[in-house]
Amino acid sequence: MSHKTNCSKEEEALLLEKCQEAKRHSYSPYSHFPVGAALLTKEGKLYTGCNVENAAYPTSLCAERTAIVKAVSEGHREFKAIAISSNLSDSFISPCGGCRQVMAEFSLDMTVYMTKADGSFLTRTVDELLPFAFTPVRMKENR
Amino acid sequence: MSHKTNCSKEEEALLLEKCQEAKRHSYSPYSHFPVGAALLTKEGKLYTGCNVENAAYPTSLCAERTAIVKAVSEGHREFKAIAISSNLSDSFISPCGGCRQVMAEFSLDMTVYMTKADGSFLTRTVDELLPFAFTPVRMKENR
Amino acid sequence: MSHKTNCSKEEEALLLEKCQEAKRHSYSPYSHFPVGAALLTKEGKLYTGCNVENAAYPTSLCAERTAIVKAVSEGHREFKAIAISSNLSDSFISPCGGCRQVMAEFSLDMTVYMTKADGSFLTRTVDELLPFAFTPVRMKENR
Amino acid sequence: MSHKTNCSKEEEALLLEKCQEAKRHSYSPYSHFPVGAALLTKEGKLYTGCNVENAAYPTSLCAERTAIVKAVSEGHREFKAIAISSNLSDSFISPCGGCRQVMAEFSLDMTVYMTKADGSFLTRTVDELLPFAFTPVRMKENR
Ligand SMILES: [Zn+2]
Ligand SMILES: [Zn+2]
Ligand SMILES: [Zn+2]
Ligand SMILES: [Zn+2]
Repeated sequence: MSHKTNCSKEEEALLLEKCQEAKRHSYSPYSHFPVGAALLTKEGKLYTGCNVENAAYPTSLCAERTAIVKAVSEGHREFKAIAISSNLSDSFISPCGGCRQVMAEFSLDMTVYMTKADGSFLTRTVDELLPFAFTPVRMKENR
Repeated sequence: MSHKTNCSKEEEALLLEKCQEAKRHSYSPYSHFPVGAALLTKEGKLYTGCNVENAAYPTSLCAERTAIVKAVSEGHREFKAIAISSNLSDSFISPCGGCRQVMAEFSLDMTVYMTKADGSFLTRTVDELLPFAFTPVRMKENR
Repeated sequence: MSHKTNCSKEEEALLLEKCQEAKRHSYSPYSHFPVGAALLTKEGKLYTGCNVENAAYPTSLCAERTAIVKAVSEGHREFKAIAISSNLSDSFISPCGGCRQVMAEFSLDMTVYMTKADGSFLTRTVDELLPFAFTPVRMKENR
Repeated sequence: MSHKTNCSKEEEALLLEKCQEAKRHSYSPYSHFPVGAALLTKEGKLYTGCNVENAAYPTSLCAERTAIVKAVSEGHREFKAIAISSNLSDSFISPCGGCRQVMAEFSLDMTVYMTKADGSFLTRTVDELLPFAFTPVRMKENR
């Protein structure tokens, strides 16, 4: 079910553990749907994120993007993998389209771990999750 | 190259023509990248959209979403197809992840026409463009 | 309580009526908080909008922005007034910061009618609602 | 010009220094408009942020929100002050409406330092920058 990934067993175990922990800081008083994310940079640094909602829903932010902007703000722009967790027990939590777009800006080849509450998971690359991605290359063609 | 679609030749021709016209109202003083969209509802109504940018980039909106919220605000929630145009001559313009997410909320089976400036195009369904979509069903499982 | 506005009594009455009607197309299955908006362009055209939510909350859109992108996509970029409605009976519904930002891009002097369910209202200009606005002028200084 | 603030001279100096430093990680290949932010929590922790843009502009994020979601993801939800920097030499950089909305979700009384490139600044509270804010209270009235 899961494709082979670019992560070592240790990295995978760490991502899966940290994405669960990250959920505890979720600010989700509107959806009551806590989400956590753990992001591994190509330099080997790990950043976690949670969803941060807002009374004005469009101003909310997802866990995956929280983790990515955190890493970027600390000087990282190349990512190896991201793991996502929610409390859903029957479905693998997948990233929304907006988060896939942010991943694609930086690393089309990064692995996305989509987990269930029991810790089982599916993996796909960003490239597989956002085929025909609208990427920075398109903006440059416009010049 | 293009999959077969759910649109008649007449509908297809109309979508391809109207998505080009829609570009002319684009408000894109920051990207200088005008985009147009034409959306066909399942009831047979056509809505057009363009990108509407903002000095604060996150508050910008894409052409595809403009067309969709327009249709929803007029009472439509089921869509048959959407066509997208830009001025790129070497690439088929594809929807960003955020727009795919908005399409997926309403119609995973809608056809997306991705065009080049010369009018040639590729088609895919939303389902193909956003595999493992995070959809309303997931939110309901959470209850 | 309300400042004097730039609208005639007829325009005001129309805005207040249409913003209530606009609510009926609201797609708000997550917040159960329907919002409607009616926008008057400087050319005298009226556009309505409603909130259009998404399972991925950040991809939702507010009623005010729906009305504005609709108008822009039909060729209008200067606005005289916007009226907003919700089902709140004890509070005047005010625009979120994101919507104020979109209003500011086009017309700092437009009047915002913030209504209660009983039809009573407060008015302010965008300039009053978003002091020290980050506007297109700032982006130009950057060049 | 600046109102009195809730920060000590030491806190103020730190915020002003760190918001300038934060700019260096800005990912702004589309606007070429780097922005930095430094956020002080009520517990005395400091978080920095920068803008993180995207080829699809609506998926971009501002420096202020980057700093805030970072702090939330580390367990902080009450903020004392935020300082913002840009390269503009003639204007105090002010937060966009979307960022004011995110600030208002957590702390209407926080101080916002709006700086110029030369380090001079203006201060206002979130409450002053977003009068009639649409806050969590409104969503609760809806229940
Ligand atoms: Zn997301
Ligand atoms: Zn888009
Ligand atoms: Zn809004
Ligand atoms: Zn902002």
